[in-house]
Amino acid sequence: MSERYDIAIVGSGPAGLEAAINAVIRNKKIILFGTENLSNKLIKAPKINNYLGSFDVTGKELMQKFKEHISAMNINIVEERINNIYAMGEYFALMVNEKMYEAKTVILAGGVEYTKPLKGEEEFLGKGVGYCATCDAPLYKGKKVAIIAYNKDAEKDANYVSELAGKLYYVPMYEGEYSLNSSIEIIKDKPIEITGDTSAEKLILKNEELNVDGVFVLKDSVSPGQLMPGLEMEGEHIKVNRNMETNIAGCFAAGDCVGKPYQFMKATGEGQIAALSAVSYLDKK
Amino acid sequence: MSERYDIAIVGSGPAGLEAAINAVIRNKKIILFGTENLSNKLIKAPKINNYLGSFDVTGKELMQKFKEHISAMNINIVEERINNIYAMGEYFALMVNEKMYEAKTVILAGGVEYTKPLKGEEEFLGKGVGYCATCDAPLYKGKKVAIIAYNKDAEKDANYVSELAGKLYYVPMYEGEYSLNSSIEIIKDKPIEITGDTSAEKLILKNEELNVDGVFVLKDSVSPGQLMPGLEMEGEHIKVNRNMETNIAGCFAAGDCVGKPYQFMKATGEGQIAALSAVSYLDKK
Ligand SMILES: Cc1cc2nc3c(=O)[nH]c(=O)nc-3n(C[C@H](O)[C@H](O)[C@H](O)COP(=O)(O)OP(=O)(O)OC[C@H]3O[C@@H](n4cnc5c(N)ncnc54)[C@H](O)[C@@H]3O)c2cc1C
Ligand SMILES: Cc1cc2nc3c(=O)[nH]c(=O)nc-3n(C[C@H](O)[C@H](O)[C@H](O)COP(=O)(O)OP(=O)(O)OC[C@H]3O[C@@H](n4cnc5c(N)ncnc54)[C@H](O)[C@@H]3O)c2cc1C
Repeated sequence: MSERYDIAIVGSGPAGLEAAINAVIRNKKIILFGTENLSNKLIKAPKINNYLGSFDVTGKELMQKFKEHISAMNINIVEERINNIYAMGEYFALMVNEKMYEAKTVILAGGVEYTKPLKGEEEFLGKGVGYCATCDAPLYKGKKVAIIAYNKDAEKDANYVSELAGKLYYVPMYEGEYSLNSSIEIIKDKPIEITGDTSAEKLILKNEELNVDGVFVLKDSVSPGQLMPGLEMEGEHIKVNRNMETNIAGCFAAGDCVGKPYQFMKATGEGQIAALSAVSYLDKK
Repeated sequence: MSERYDIAIVGSGPAGLEAAINAVIRNKKIILFGTENLSNKLIKAPKINNYLGSFDVTGKELMQKFKEHISAMNINIVEERINNIYAMGEYFALMVNEKMYEAKTVILAGGVEYTKPLKGEEEFLGKGVGYCATCDAPLYKGKKVAIIAYNKDAEKDANYVSELAGKLYYVPMYEGEYSLNSSIEIIKDKPIEITGDTSAEKLILKNEELNVDGVFVLKDSVSPGQLMPGLEMEGEHIKVNRNMETNIAGCFAAGDCVGKPYQFMKATGEGQIAALSAVSYLDKK
């Protein structure tokens, strides 16, 4: 049987990190999912003046301080992207493709996606358009697939999909080196629209058009409603009360994903509340 | 006519400071009321591990970082204790004894009082028991008054009252040197109860009893309901929604005063939200 954690924290931005340190101080067994660089938004912030105690810092400098803080407390980040979370009654099942993690409570701190959806993206969602390449790859065995990738993490997924798909186009929306299988065709162009009749058939870019059977759009954050079936939303944000409780017992949320303003201290403050609410939920059981 | 500020912030703890820096970044004209040491709670905290980015610091070290942050932004603390705030429609009037400050919006960030009320304190409140010595001193001209003082700030008030009262007892609840007029009698004893018939007549201490006409209890924070008439409370906390709006338009609140958990990051996160809510309230006008 797999190990069962007290608290699973999904997201390693300021909200998730502050939740993690508070949960550890309260002696809870936690698992923290995210990325090595903590948060793309954090490292992109050019100059931060409103994080009390750290005037005039870059996002990278703040990231360094956060990293030192969690490593001083022996908190590790598990570099996995959670695809789905299911409330099983006694526990939550957090899925990473074929792998499963179990936890008694969950804190959602995955941030929000700032990029606007492409034209056609929402229309064809589930009809040739998907957000989880590794989940849905088997549907496209031998077929033509495009991946629109907003970050480097997508390269792993692309390599996996390329082993099944007949043809894979990779459209990187970021700069840098790409570690991709040689069979993958890299398209450096700006995606404009996804078109089709009843399902996605074509990815239209600024300078060319690709005939495809499927398009994956791989962004930093999955929409939380999609991550966790049954989660009550308020527009594009997770609905929470002032204790950061969602509508699902044992599931809490914090940071950008629960609403504006999108700011560091709001995120950390909510991460702290979410952790302490999870702790008292566990202690009552 | 007195100068009218965009935002008056009452309290210089983490909530008030984070509100101040966000308001200044948004180009608002602010006034920040509080004390030079920022917050007694902050400086008393022996060891802080849950302020993300600053592992294993003392409260004094964190205070130093906060001070550097606000002074780098040219934010000053006005060392005055607000006694009353009145919503005047177009603006708020913030009273410090005979002085008045005006602001279009107010952020309440005065923390909470951890000390329990004395036996009899609430019963005789307004009937010989008061929290604002300088406001009510004229009532006790030539009479016998006791001041129970939880911090050094009370000494200034005591000296003022001693010029009017016939006899003044000073019961310090803190250690240190006392800078008091020679007419004041210092009583080093533990207050137990305030008794009387229809109004306060006696202060009972562990080892003696004092016959008095009035008792002032001077704590770090005044109860917010008393600070601002008409403010809706929820138990001992100010009622706010997730935008940190109180029931009074233009009045926002943040930090310990709006509820538990009593923690630094919760306070700063809420201070940030309160400031940004005040900014958008001002911008809509
Ligand atoms: C350019 C820029 C500048 C900014 N400047 C400032 C500023 O000066 N001051 C300020 O206060 N705010 C600023 N912000 C806003 C700030 O970055 C965000 O408010 C903050 O990062 C939100 O924190 P969060 O923890 O909620 O989410 P994020 O920081 O977005 O972190 C979420 C993390 O969770 C991970 N994640 C998401 N889904 C999953 C999943 N399913 N499995 C595993 N991991 C997952 C993501 O990859 C990410 O690492 C700026 C933002 C940008 C983009
Ligand atoms: C011993 C101790 C240890 C702690 N350790 C931790 C810890 O490790 N981690 C953690 O997260 N939290 C800790 N806390 C809790 C933390 O100190 C509080 O949650 C935090 O200080 C609340 O911030 P605040 O800004 O809401 O209020 P406060 O810090 O209480 O600040 C309020 C300020 O407003 C001023 N004020 C009040 N009324 C008025 C008025 N009418 N006019 C002008 N000024 C006014 C007060 O004098 C005070 O300076 C600790 C508390 C104590 C007492």
